[in-house]
Amino acid sequence: MELPDLRTRKRLVVAGIDPGTRVMGFGVVGRVGGRVIRVDHGAFRPPRDGDVGARLFSLFTSLRALVGHHKPDLLSLEKTFFAKNAQSTLRIGEARAIVLLVAEEAGIPVLEYPPTVAKRAVTGSGAADKPTVARMVAADLGLAELPQPHDAADALALALCALRDPRLDPRFR
Amino acid sequence: MELPDLRTRKRLVVAGIDPGTRVMGFGVVGRVGGRVIRVDHGAFRPPRDGDVGARLFSLFTSLRALVGHHKPDLLSLEKTFFAKNAQSTLRIGEARAIVLLVAEEAGIPVLEYPPTVAKRAVTGSGAADKPTVARMVAADLGLAELPQPHDAADALALALCALRDPRLDPRFR
Repeated sequence: MELPDLRTRKRLVVAGIDPGTRVMGFGVVGRVGGRVIRVDHGAFRPPRDGDVGARLFSLFTSLRALVGHHKPDLLSLEKTFFAKNAQSTLRIGEARAIVLLVAEEAGIPVLEYPPTVAKRAVTGSGAADKPTVARMVAADLGLAELPQPHDAADALALALCALRDPRLDPRFR
Repeated sequence: MELPDLRTRKRLVVAGIDPGTRVMGFGVVGRVGGRVIRVDHGAFRPPRDGDVGARLFSLFTSLRALVGHHKPDLLSLEKTFFAKNAQSTLRIGEARAIVLLVAEEAGIPVLEYPPTVAKRAVTGSGAADKPTVARMVAADLGLAELPQPHDAADALALALCALRDPRLDPRFR
């Protein structure tokens, strides 16, 4: 999916996705005029007793509904290069496929950022721990409480990271 | 998806899938009474110039159409434990997700077999090379020509492997 010029948009909605097959975090933020606001955040937890197919189908249905509801202009997806073992990498590939499929079906471009890049965008450090990411995201978005669970905080960080990407940020016109 | 008792079925259709995001092989076989016949085989090749999302969506659409057309009672999927590197493992995970998603959506159970098990089922050796697999599959199914490409031959081997699984084979009642 080609990325249109989103820097000039008055209203821009970005959905960040932290992909996983057990928990998939989402964080939707909007840029309205010069302000950045939280739109939605949370996590999908497919039934734990189901097999992988049932979990993937549940995530597919949930993400499709989220995208249909908020109609984001862009998805911001965590890019993982490797996991601790082949089994985890396979699971990440499966979760990624669901996100890419929903985006393609809805005609929404996807930008991908390594976790370190998303962390640096919100905390200034690529090595920030999860509580720091949650705190900085909450401060950035003026949230009264820390976003829960941490998968949702990570997803909000991914969405904010995209909004600061020179390809989307009006300051880089 | 629970596996119903398929051993007593007079007519049983199994679709074997060799998962890949560049080439996805398929091989559909049927057991009609005591005979095993080839129904269809080939490979999906999503557009090479598209990004991963476009390729996955193309595979999703193609596999969904195949399943809608042949209405298999079961999918037989290659189970891979690891690939040569993390990038390949991620790609396999993505391709697997498409197969599992289509199966779940259509309510079709999936059985998985490691490549060595599928090879052994058709050639007697888990270490058989691709030409041997293609030759034995052709002989088994009475094909006048070797199945092409090798991804399709591997998929037919997966389907035949499932038909010989004690859970499906009427000789094991």
